[in-house]
Amino acid sequence: MKLLEFLKRERKKSAPVAKERLQIIVAHQRSQRSQRGQPDYMPMLERELLEVIRRYVQVDDDAINISLDSEDNCSVLELNVTLPKGAPG
Amino acid sequence: MKLLEFLKRERKKSAPVAKERLQIIVAHQRSQRSQRGQPDYMPMLERELLEVIRRYVQVDDDAINISLDSEDNCSVLELNVTLPKGAPG
Repeated sequence: MKLLEFLKRERKKSAPVAKERLQIIVAHQRSQRSQRGQPDYMPMLERELLEVIRRYVQVDDDAINISLDSEDNCSVLELNVTLPKGAPG
Repeated sequence: MKLLEFLKRERKKSAPVAKERLQIIVAHQRSQRSQRGQPDYMPMLERELLEVIRRYVQVDDDAINISLDSEDNCSVLELNVTLPKGAPG
C-alpha cells in the first residue's frame, strides 16, 4: 500500500473532507547497532524543518496538533495542521 | 492502524534494518472546493527542506529519494534520506 493511500484512508475515517489540512511527518530510523536514543542534532533539525514549512504556510499554534511517537529504533514526529481559509496553495 | 506501524511495515518489506534513515513527508489535503492540482509552493518547499537537512547531515545526491505524489485533492511530498555512517549524533 502506498503512503498516499494510507493517509487518505485514515482521513476518511476521521471526518468528512471540508477543511484544508497539512500533515508533516519526520520519521527517523536508527540502525540496529546504534540504538541509543535519537542523535543530538535531531531536535534542532526538526525545529528548522518546521520553520521552513511555516514560511510557506501560515498557521496558528492552536491549529497544530503535534505527536511524538517512538518505538524500537524508530521515532516519528507528526504534525497535523488545519489551514486557515485564506492559506496559499 | 497507526502511522508508525505503517511506516515500520513498509520498511520491513524493502530491506533489512541496517542503515540510518530519515523520512520527511509533507501531505497537503485541499478542501473539495479548491481542487486544482498541487500547491504552488511544493517545489520550493522541497528545495528548502533539503537545504536544512544538508546543513545537519552530509548526504550524497544518490542517497536522497524524492517523490511527489498527487491524487484527487491530496498531494504528498516524500523525502527518503539514507544517512551516512559517520553522521553526527
